[in-house]
Amino acid sequence: MRAAVLRDGEVVVRDDAPEPVPALGQVLVEVKACGICGSDLHFVRHGEEMLRLGEQMRGMPDLGDMGPTRTDLARDVFMGHEFSAEILEVGPDTTTLPVGTTVTSIPVLMSMTGFEPIVYSNEVPGGYGERMLLSAPLLLEVPNGLDPRHAALTEPMAVGLHAVNKSGIEQGTGALVLGCGPVGLAVIAALARRGVEPIVASDFSPARRALAAAMGAHATVDPAVMSAFDALAREAPGRDVVVYEAIGVPGILHEVFRDAPAKSRIVVVGVCMGHDSVVPFFGISKELNVQFVLGYDPTEFEASLRAIAEGEVDVVPMITGVVSLDGVPQAFADLADPEQHCKILVVP
Amino acid sequence: MRAAVLRDGEVVVRDDAPEPVPALGQVLVEVKACGICGSDLHFVRHGEEMLRLGEQMRGMPDLGDMGPTRTDLARDVFMGHEFSAEILEVGPDTTTLPVGTTVTSIPVLMSMTGFEPIVYSNEVPGGYGERMLLSAPLLLEVPNGLDPRHAALTEPMAVGLHAVNKSGIEQGTGALVLGCGPVGLAVIAALARRGVEPIVASDFSPARRALAAAMGAHATVDPAVMSAFDALAREAPGRDVVVYEAIGVPGILHEVFRDAPAKSRIVVVGVCMGHDSVVPFFGISKELNVQFVLGYDPTEFEASLRAIAEGEVDVVPMITGVVSLDGVPQAFADLADPEQHCKILVVP
Repeated sequence: MRAAVLRDGEVVVRDDAPEPVPALGQVLVEVKACGICGSDLHFVRHGEEMLRLGEQMRGMPDLGDMGPTRTDLARDVFMGHEFSAEILEVGPDTTTLPVGTTVTSIPVLMSMTGFEPIVYSNEVPGGYGERMLLSAPLLLEVPNGLDPRHAALTEPMAVGLHAVNKSGIEQGTGALVLGCGPVGLAVIAALARRGVEPIVASDFSPARRALAAAMGAHATVDPAVMSAFDALAREAPGRDVVVYEAIGVPGILHEVFRDAPAKSRIVVVGVCMGHDSVVPFFGISKELNVQFVLGYDPTEFEASLRAIAEGEVDVVPMITGVVSLDGVPQAFADLADPEQHCKILVVP
Repeated sequence: MRAAVLRDGEVVVRDDAPEPVPALGQVLVEVKACGICGSDLHFVRHGEEMLRLGEQMRGMPDLGDMGPTRTDLARDVFMGHEFSAEILEVGPDTTTLPVGTTVTSIPVLMSMTGFEPIVYSNEVPGGYGERMLLSAPLLLEVPNGLDPRHAALTEPMAVGLHAVNKSGIEQGTGALVLGCGPVGLAVIAALARRGVEPIVASDFSPARRALAAAMGAHATVDPAVMSAFDALAREAPGRDVVVYEAIGVPGILHEVFRDAPAKSRIVVVGVCMGHDSVVPFFGISKELNVQFVLGYDPTEFEASLRAIAEGEVDVVPMITGVVSLDGVPQAFADLADPEQHCKILVVP
């Protein structure tokens, strides 16, 4: 089948990807839409470093032979973990939703020998291909009437919901969202749905600030013109503050430590690769709390799908492009320009 | 009067420090004992950098003319904020405890024009002098029978209590204390009093590991022999963990990020000057929470005094030396050796 893969640091389209075959507990699906995630751009650029850091890191649960295998960059790597799909075929001895159902799922493939994340895998095909495998127990039916392209936004919106849940923000507390890429916008949507006010959003790009307002930000600021923290102080003077860092480039954490109000809670949801430098003295003097967040849990994933299906979160403004598989390499390049794009969907 | 001061980067003893005169709301006290704090050693070495970073830092409450004045390193700087003292004279129109009472206080001097921390001040004398001023509304009577030398440990023990309170650690969660200087030991004492088990403490120094055990650590580890995180995993397998970072040298935060178990809470109570490098990827992958802490509130200060007075916290093992004012310069030098010293008290 056809699939876009990462090969020697480039995204290329191949026609001869192995046809996936569903095993016990799995289904074969046809991909309806798959969003291109910023973490995929990161992986294309910094894959080697991510894998190296992953090897240095300790303290992760030891899953032994049941855990995911290491990605080999010398081989083709499948990507695409923000998908909706239609069930084509059910694996042997497997009871699940009927063939033809439109579904989505957290990106994990279960099998009799363990599980594999549906991301950066040499073996498990992802959403940048015509077909893929999903785990029957993890399938969520896309409610009738919801456009599968919108359902593909379930995953990134769940990331924002999780960040907001982890922050424990309550009404009466102000929110500052730094960076209005897809993750920042997902945070804004989750904050707005929770009734947080004001939500102040910061981005250099006018297009992204407009998107932030569309997703529910009460005020937006161009950090080239005014400090995001000054804007927040103007909108929410004297208020407790949660800062959501959704930029993820070196140096931002340092600025947040330096400029955030005393006692701020900082939620780091932007993935920054490599080392970053902070001044602990700032953190200590202001008793900052820093919560790093990743992903979501299955409950949040389901809540995210429901919120989109019920029209509580409108993802339409975020979708700025749709490409076929052949358009994937160019889409990866195009996403570098925040004026042009937010979320590009691949429709194989 | 006589006082040890910081002058041109050196601690020197002067005979001609101005005699303090209590104003409205203040008392003149005779210092009975004052502990030498690690932050004073830091200030002697890194004072200029601390002041420079303080100027860069934003987000602190704006106190205007009522707030503390900036320390001028070109002039003598008074230090000493871990004190007990005896009331010698009460300021005009001031009602408070009687002359002769032994007291302690949070190190803040209130006046009609604002307040000044009793630390790193060009004007307000500290505990490394014969006499000093305290604020009548902040005085706490040292309970009858408690040695004033032990009461002088109220302040550092309150720092540990605050760190433990801020961490919100509950029974059933394991604690790892990195660094067994006075701050780490105060954390251990507060954890032990809260019934946390196990408390694992790590320090290169055998003397400090022995002190850690005396203060309530259930296990100690020499990080040159075994990783503190491995020791913790051995003592509390599969347990949720709070890590108290009480070392405060560059590089430690990086190691904690890399090695801490997933979902760990990290409490940074050790003051590290300058920039430090972390890998946000580790924090994100493990959803670490980092709480920076500083000081204590008045309630915690009072609870700390009470715990010492009622014998719930035994500070005696921590006191490894007593010097007169003339011994202060040498004491600052001696504190560099963890085998020799933990807390040195100045008895003017």
